[in-house]
Amino acid sequence: MMDMKEVKIKQIDGGVNAAAGFKAAGVAAGIKYTGRNDMAMIYSEKDAVVAATFTSNVVKASPVKYDMKIVSDSPYVRAVVVNSGIANAATGKQGMELCENTAKAAAKALNIPENSVLVGSTGVIGEQIPFDRISAGVDALAAKLSDTREAAADAERAIMTTDTVPKEVAVTVEIGGKTVTIGGMSKGSGMIHPNMCTMLAYICTDCNISREMLDLAVKRDIADTFNMITVDGDTSTNDTYIVMANGLADNPKIVSEGDDFDAFYAALHFVDEYLARNMAKDGEGATALFEVKVTGADTKENAKVLARSVVGSSLCKAAIYGHDSNFGRFLCALGYSGVDFDPDKVSLKYESRAGSVCVFKNGLKADYSEDEATAVLSEDEVTVVIDMNAGDAKATAWGCDLSYDYVKINADYRS
Amino acid sequence: MMDMKEVKIKQIDGGVNAAAGFKAAGVAAGIKYTGRNDMAMIYSEKDAVVAATFTSNVVKASPVKYDMKIVSDSPYVRAVVVNSGIANAATGKQGMELCENTAKAAAKALNIPENSVLVGSTGVIGEQIPFDRISAGVDALAAKLSDTREAAADAERAIMTTDTVPKEVAVTVEIGGKTVTIGGMSKGSGMIHPNMCTMLAYICTDCNISREMLDLAVKRDIADTFNMITVDGDTSTNDTYIVMANGLADNPKIVSEGDDFDAFYAALHFVDEYLARNMAKDGEGATALFEVKVTGADTKENAKVLARSVVGSSLCKAAIYGHDSNFGRFLCALGYSGVDFDPDKVSLKYESRAGSVCVFKNGLKADYSEDEATAVLSEDEVTVVIDMNAGDAKATAWGCDLSYDYVKINADYRS
Repeated sequence: MMDMKEVKIKQIDGGVNAAAGFKAAGVAAGIKYTGRNDMAMIYSEKDAVVAATFTSNVVKASPVKYDMKIVSDSPYVRAVVVNSGIANAATGKQGMELCENTAKAAAKALNIPENSVLVGSTGVIGEQIPFDRISAGVDALAAKLSDTREAAADAERAIMTTDTVPKEVAVTVEIGGKTVTIGGMSKGSGMIHPNMCTMLAYICTDCNISREMLDLAVKRDIADTFNMITVDGDTSTNDTYIVMANGLADNPKIVSEGDDFDAFYAALHFVDEYLARNMAKDGEGATALFEVKVTGADTKENAKVLARSVVGSSLCKAAIYGHDSNFGRFLCALGYSGVDFDPDKVSLKYESRAGSVCVFKNGLKADYSEDEATAVLSEDEVTVVIDMNAGDAKATAWGCDLSYDYVKINADYRS
Repeated sequence: MMDMKEVKIKQIDGGVNAAAGFKAAGVAAGIKYTGRNDMAMIYSEKDAVVAATFTSNVVKASPVKYDMKIVSDSPYVRAVVVNSGIANAATGKQGMELCENTAKAAAKALNIPENSVLVGSTGVIGEQIPFDRISAGVDALAAKLSDTREAAADAERAIMTTDTVPKEVAVTVEIGGKTVTIGGMSKGSGMIHPNMCTMLAYICTDCNISREMLDLAVKRDIADTFNMITVDGDTSTNDTYIVMANGLADNPKIVSEGDDFDAFYAALHFVDEYLARNMAKDGEGATALFEVKVTGADTKENAKVLARSVVGSSLCKAAIYGHDSNFGRFLCALGYSGVDFDPDKVSLKYESRAGSVCVFKNGLKADYSEDEATAVLSEDEVTVVIDMNAGDAKATAWGCDLSYDYVKINADYRS
């Protein structure tokens, strides 16, 4: 990876439609919810190359299967139609037909080829989506498409399920003397676990980049961002990450690795990490972002496995919720990760806006103040830094604490 | 495995000291708790062969490391000393010395060889155990050893942490014209996850059996019982399963496979499954036993992986807590288990004392009554039966639901 300090990334006020040529809309289509947005559309005025990753779950929702084919076979895309409320998963032939009919309706409303339309769904598994509502929704969305901030917010709210806040971000970066913009939105909250980007994320950029280079950037970056977050260990049937690039920034086309690719990659990484962190922080019932940084590991892969094991542990998550310096749990979760290491070399500290406290040093409890540890753990963003003292590799994973509300939300999610 | 129907196993009233020649005791030694038993001792009047399995966690508590050496090197054992309150894990050299000194004290008090004493601990990680309390506790235990029901109960309560009920079981089985007895106790509750028996389980039998055959029985049975339960996915640093056989039943010594071995194995399986199920049912905060039966899998190993994935899913566990027929979550958890299968062949039903309801048939939602499903899911023992329709292999896993109380217990476990 390049040295990111050389690339100047500027975060700007904006959402999924921040880049040139992209429009968005959100409407209340009554799929399952009443009185709130539940359908979104993203539209690119110009053909956009696309790169995507999807859930590794064997049980793939219909829109995932549909989009995998479009991404694989279509030279470019123009639009995405997404609904929340029903996941269109475990819905058999009827579920696939719904995807086809949704794409047909959008193609007609927008006057674009059917195979340039992507679809997405999130919500309850096993129920069929009523097509008449999707059909009416598509027409309403097509009529509302806009590049305003309000339109982005409409779309971002429409893809939320148990999310408490919409997730959006936009940045600019200079590439070949031109200003390239990347905007994105995502939704997360539950059924969030590494093994692909998590739930739905849509990134739109006006960067002029070849499909191969866009693919490369996505493959590299997902592994360090969306695949490093977890809320509850449950990898969804619908996970979808899509990035579309329509070239309207008019930068010299990126067709190989080099400074321009590095600049784009750095900006995409900023967007991906921002959305991933915010999805983790807004995990179901979460009161705090739980960040785990593993340093001094023997290999990068082991660093990742260790970080993910700790961030995914129910006992560690509950300790964060309780602001309880129960460091043995972090050690325990390292121990069952599958990675071999010497426990007597491990050191642990907590970090947050309230300070930093070392609680475990070279395999033994450190001399520390419980009050200080509690203060550090009581912030809404808490980092556990684990030094394996076994090498130079490091990795960061993001999750959230485990609260009463997680249970409450999930004990009666459908009602 | 043999046909179990041919073996007559009789459950009897009794606990860990039910078999001939075994005594038990429990005392309040003030290790960490006050006013409750926190030290237990098991004693065999006669040399006992031993078989054991321990945690797979890389971070192994001192008593685990100590016992592994005793089990490996000693020809027989005579006693076990266990404490709750502090786990003696991540305690370095001082922790190992505590184990040695505990064994020395017990050897002296009981007049047995030091290398015939096993030790065990459960509780908070990272703290040192005060040896003066252990030393006083060992003397008090040695003086109280007894074969009464009350003595068993004293010991069983002493090893509990967040357990709400003690777990004990005793059975008899006829082997070679003699009545063989097996008694056992265990504690579980949190940090419970397959990958070895879970937390502490001690089984005492008067069966006359060679060490090799005892080892074989344990290895075979643990895989189908203790390794198939989970409470929270966290494999403890202290997991210990020990079975001791002192031969006092005077049956013809079991030195090879055959009818006698099969009879012993069946009885041991009964004891192990009973204790494992009850540990799952008494998982931290649990309101229900959550049993997952996978049938029709292509291989036994895949059946186990699938069953464990569902029983360990936070979302599935929360659905059981909420009596919510959110069958998509079970399907989702099958899908991310790592096993490949055809989702369109899967069928799902719920079973409990309240009846049986099929909710998902060959990849599609079945026509069922939500009220009936809720009724079936509202019992305190609920089974989800999953037919993969891909072969003849099957497996069962046990866990519990995820409740507010799990979070409450674990957010301030140390206080």
